[in-house]
This record gives sequence, structure tokens and C-alpha cells, in this order.
Amino acid sequence: MKKHNFSAGPCILPQEVFEEASQGILDFQNSGLSILEISHRSEAFVSVIEEARSLALQLLGLENKGYSALFLHGGASTQFLMTAYNFLNKKAGYLNTGTWSSKAIKEAKLFGEVVEVGSSKDKNFNYIPKDYKIPSGLDYLHCTSNNTIYGTQIKDFPNIDAPLFCDMSSDIFSREMDFSKFDLIYAGAQKNMGPAGTTLVVIKNDLIKKVEREVPSMLNYKVHLEKDSMFNTPAVYAVYVSLLTLRWIKNNGGIKAMEQNNNAKADLLYKEIDRNPLFKGFAAPEDRSPMNVTFNLTDESRKEAFDELWKNAGINGLNGHRSVGGYRASMYNALRLESVEVLVSCMQKLEEQN
Amino acid sequence: MKKHNFSAGPCILPQEVFEEASQGILDFQNSGLSILEISHRSEAFVSVIEEARSLALQLLGLENKGYSALFLHGGASTQFLMTAYNFLNKKAGYLNTGTWSSKAIKEAKLFGEVVEVGSSKDKNFNYIPKDYKIPSGLDYLHCTSNNTIYGTQIKDFPNIDAPLFCDMSSDIFSREMDFSKFDLIYAGAQKNMGPAGTTLVVIKNDLIKKVEREVPSMLNYKVHLEKDSMFNTPAVYAVYVSLLTLRWIKNNGGIKAMEQNNNAKADLLYKEIDRNPLFKGFAAPEDRSPMNVTFNLTDESRKEAFDELWKNAGINGLNGHRSVGGYRASMYNALRLESVEVLVSCMQKLEEQN
Ligand SMILES: Cc1ncc(COP(=O)(O)O)c(C=O)c1O
Ligand SMILES: Cc1ncc(COP(=O)(O)O)c(C=O)c1O
Ligand SMILES: [Mg+2]
Ligand SMILES: [Mg+2]
Ligand SMILES: [Mg+2]
Ligand SMILES: [Mg+2]
Repeated sequence: MKKHNFSAGPCILPQEVFEEASQGILDFQNSGLSILEISHRSEAFVSVIEEARSLALQLLGLENKGYSALFLHGGASTQFLMTAYNFLNKKAGYLNTGTWSSKAIKEAKLFGEVVEVGSSKDKNFNYIPKDYKIPSGLDYLHCTSNNTIYGTQIKDFPNIDAPLFCDMSSDIFSREMDFSKFDLIYAGAQKNMGPAGTTLVVIKNDLIKKVEREVPSMLNYKVHLEKDSMFNTPAVYAVYVSLLTLRWIKNNGGIKAMEQNNNAKADLLYKEIDRNPLFKGFAAPEDRSPMNVTFNLTDESRKEAFDELWKNAGINGLNGHRSVGGYRASMYNALRLESVEVLVSCMQKLEEQN
Repeated sequence: MKKHNFSAGPCILPQEVFEEASQGILDFQNSGLSILEISHRSEAFVSVIEEARSLALQLLGLENKGYSALFLHGGASTQFLMTAYNFLNKKAGYLNTGTWSSKAIKEAKLFGEVVEVGSSKDKNFNYIPKDYKIPSGLDYLHCTSNNTIYGTQIKDFPNIDAPLFCDMSSDIFSREMDFSKFDLIYAGAQKNMGPAGTTLVVIKNDLIKKVEREVPSMLNYKVHLEKDSMFNTPAVYAVYVSLLTLRWIKNNGGIKAMEQNNNAKADLLYKEIDRNPLFKGFAAPEDRSPMNVTFNLTDESRKEAFDELWKNAGINGLNGHRSVGGYRASMYNALRLESVEVLVSCMQKLEEQN
């Protein structure tokens, strides 16, 4: 039986994507070759990566606006270091909204001064800092749009003079936004975009002019831009499955439709958390993420009973991250409303048991 | 029809691997989940990466000998920079045997002094330098065991005091050797080990003590060792398919049997190149690689006729790299002798046509 997969990432992808992705391993486009054995310099693969690059920009509304998309190696964690290696010449600002922001800050400190413009560490990152001051003279301001572990999401991004960088690993392609506010966006593929093993970077072409340091080739955005994201062998299969997922987003109404579905799922679950006396939400209500819903039992002694209920219902991946405890329901684009309905009915059954 | 795939990498993998790899996308180990959607922290995946790490060491004869295996992001090109970032404190030696060695040298120069101990650039890298002198006081000596583009292979590795590092991207798991001669071995997966998207690093644990620089986490071998190759989300699928390929190597007689088959294929093709007056080999005979066989027509005017012959025979990926021209037959572990027989028969047909 197919599971209801609430994993935080790697995570559920559309069933159609799994099917096409499986077929491509046996025979890619009737070529008599597996997608795993074709040259990355073949016409077939070059057209895969080019379509993926342009579709990513198109879905974000950034086509013909001076941006480029790259599919790089190394996960979002490599972007923590690449952003700083390339662009932290003197001083950068970081908004600290959780584990991932903190890790980005740690890497950046190797390259220059880091100003933590705001932090929600005082309350175990259960909210998004607001009304923080942004000093002048920053090389860039870095933020994390969605905090996968804590279930918070930035709703309003600051208007600043400095370039704005954003780690969108866990909510890219999930909600409409003016993406042209950002100068650099990155996201590990393994949430809304594809499987683990490739990272999307969307970068304003002009930004490259700001690089002062001598940067090793594999960490150098300019090198990857000049080589059309093919400086070395890309993660062929991860890029291919990302393309299939991007096509699925486009064919299913684009980001606008994704956002509507995501909001419907989030409304359903947050309403139940608020209504049901056995559960309480972790994140501050105004900062709640539709992607990762973090919640706890009001009475820990019911844990065994609840765990049995959801496991028997075919739910997977609901355990919370150790930094928060309790439960985390990750509801990325490909998760269906009916999976959330199953979860909500487990929560209601627990209530009935008492 | 299944092609005879002579691609240089990404390249052919065993048919059984493709089949199991395709099935795992639809349902991984009857879990009701795709391998693409499971958490990298799940027991199922942790056991995949742990088995892959230990099988890699086992096949190389390095188990319980103070080595660890890592599956990292970034391709072999990232190792060019990581080796130097971690270990080039003052001065390192490099043997320059082609494009890939040259690129490793370029990255290393950002971190310290590079002594090119030998080079075959004078003859477009068609041979392996011998009798070169190795200065004392090196942090390490770096070499490339098999030169994918030029079709040369190092048969004898130097005995030195300094740590010996080797880029084995295109011949790892293809021939028996005393791998304990090396302190650090790396290889992009996409030749003998798996699909593009992960890189094997085999490192002597003691080596870590030599690191003097402060190294960013994602480039830091110590960090990856301490986190059992799970510092960030690994390239789950590429690691899984690598495991399937490593198991196939083991179940088919290990490196010893691979080497016998590889030698049989190489003998067949090199004999034909030498015998057939229409072809000549590129690499110096004593340095010929069984993995990548580079050859040219003695008369370029027969190119069209030869290309038609091999394309009609279902051969793929035979065009030489632009640095060498002519043809390159890459014959990794999974390529079958019968594919080489088909190629040889095309060469003989060309001869008969004249
Ligand atoms: C918001 C965010 N940033 C960064 C990362 C790290 O990504 P990776 O494991 O690809 O390095 C994660 C992983 O879950 C994440 O959720
Ligand atoms: C010997 C050798 N080293 C390094 C590389 C670069 O590998 P990657 O593309 O994974 O960075 C290659 C690629 O073909 C290679 O053959
Ligand atoms: Mg977080
Ligand atoms: Mg409640
Ligand atoms: Mg080479
Ligand atoms: Mg000849």
C-alpha cells in the first residue's frame, strides 16, 4: 500500500514523476540507453538541464529579468559557504530563524564579519523576528524563508538596499511571491523540486561583479554561469527528476495552484490542532508554515496511543525533529489533501478514545 | 534495442543494476515508498550508505586497516579543491598526466606551492612520465591513475615518504592493486561505481591530524568522517545505485574478476588497432589503459564510412574527446566482451570495404 508520506525531506514527489523516473532508468526516451548511462554532454541531457533551468526561472516569474538558474552539487549546505566565499567581502547581515540559519552563519564567519540582525533563539525559534534594524554597508542580507525544523515561515521580506539572499530549500515553488526582490535564491532539491542530490541556485547575473576574492572553480558562481551549469559532470538523474517535477508543477497550474492546495491542507491541519484539546501548535500562529506543521500532544502520556493510530493509518515521517520534539507534518506540493484528512481523522480518533 | 555503450562517463552499468534501480523508484524494499522519497535518516537509508561504505573498503582490501570511505557531493572536481584546502599547508607535488591532473593543479595553487614533479604535456599527454624526481618535504604527492581523455594508465606508483593521493575516477574497482599504498583515493562514481552525483573518498583516518587550516564544514574531511558521511543530505539515489553496483562487483568475483574481463576486452581491441592498417593507437603502448582506448584512423577520409558502420551496429559514445580527436572506446567493468567484438567487427568491415 502506498504510504501517506509526511517526511521533511527527502519527501514525497508526484506519483506520475516516480513512474516516468522509473521508466527512464530502463530506457530513456526510447534511446536504448538508461538515463543513468548517457553522457552529460549528449544532446539528450543538455536539453534536459536547459529545460530545467529555464522552467525554474519561468515558474518563479524571473525569465528575461537578468537572472540565471544553476543546478549545482553539494546541497543547500554548500550554499552556506559559497554565498559567503563569493560575496562576503567585509560584512554581511543574517537573520537567525533556526538551525539552518545558524549553520549558514557559522560558515559565513570564516569569510568576514557577520551581523546577526535578528534572532528568535530566545524562544527556541518558534517565531520570526520582526522590527529588526538592518545596518548600512552590508554586502548582503541572508534569510531563510521557511524553517523546516520549527515550522515557521517569513511572510514579509525586508526592503533593503543591500542584495537579499534567501535559503528557500523548504518552500520554493510553494507560494507566489515577487521573487525579483531577491538577488540570490538557493534550495536543495529534496523538498518541492526533486530528489536529494542537486541544488537550485537562482542568481541575478549582475551580482557576479561584486566578487573580490579568488574563488576555487567548483565554488565559483561565475564559473558555473559561464559553463551553463556544466562545469563538471552534473548530478544527471537528480536534475532529470527535478525537471519532471517542475513540469508537473507547470502542468498543474504553476505556483499559484500549488499555493492554493498548500493553504487548503494547512488550514485543515492547523484548524484541527487548534480545535482538538489533545494537541497544541509549536510555532507562533502568525508565523506558521504551510509546509512544515509542528505540534505537540498536550498530554505526553497519549504518545503511544497516537503513534499507533497514525502508523496503522499508513502515515510515514510524522516524528518531530529532536530540537522541537512532538510531531511535524511536512506537506509539500505533492502531498495530497486526502493524506491530511487521514492525519486529521487520526487526531480525532485519539480524542474519541478518551 | 539495447545499445553497446562505450561512453566515457556517465557510462554503462550492469543491466541487473538498472532493473533493481528502476524498481526501487516505484517501491523500495516493499516499503510503500519510493527510494526517492525516504528520509536519509531512515534506518533503510542509513543501512544503504553503511553497506556501501564498508563494501567499498572491502573490495579494495582496506577493511580494518585504518581507512574510512565517504560518499560526498561535488564530483571529483570538488576533490581537486578539498584535497588542497585540507592538506596543502606548504608544498605539494603533482604528476601532470592530462586535463584532470592539470585541473587539480590549478585548484591546488590557490592554497600553496605546487611542484609539478613530472608532465607529459610535451606529447599531448600520450604517455606516463617515468623516472621523475620527487623533492622532499612535500605535504603529499597527487596523481591520476587513469587518464580518461588520453587513454593512459599509471602501472607503477611511486614509493615515497609523503602521503600519496590518487584520483582514481576512471579506473577504481577495475584492477587489483595494493591500495594501502595510498593515503587518500577519490573517484567520481560515474564510471565503474555508479551514476553521476556522488563521489567516493577513501581516506586514511590518521591523515586528518595533518590539517592546519580552518576548513568550511562541507569541504572538511574531518566533519564528514565524524558524521559518518551524513553531515548533510547525501545524494540518496546515487549512493543507492552505487551500492547496487558494488554488490554486483562482489557477486561477480570482485576486482580480480573485473580485471580479467577488462584485460580480455582490452587485448581484443588493442590487437585489432595494431593489426588493422586503417587504425593507429594514440597512447604509448606501455602506458595503454584498459578502460579508455584512444585510437585514430590512419586516413581521415574514411571517417564517414567508419562512423556509419559503428552507428548502424548499435554502438554509442565512440567519439574521441576534442583534445585527442579520433575515437575513444571506454570499456568499464559493465561493458561486455560481446560489445567489443561488435566494435572489432566494424573495424574489420571497414578494412574489407577498401
Ligand atoms: C531550510 C533548509 N536549509 C538547508 C538545509 C540543508 O540542506 P542540505 O542537506 O541539502 O545541505 C535544509 C535541510 O533540510 C533545510 O531545510
Ligand atoms: C580522471 C578524472 N578525474 C576527474 C574527473 C572530473 O569528474 P567530475 O565531473 O565528477 O568532477 C573526471 C571526469 O571525467 C575524470 O575522468
Ligand atoms: Mg530550520
Ligand atoms: Mg489544540
Ligand atoms: Mg585525463
Ligand atoms: Mg593499426
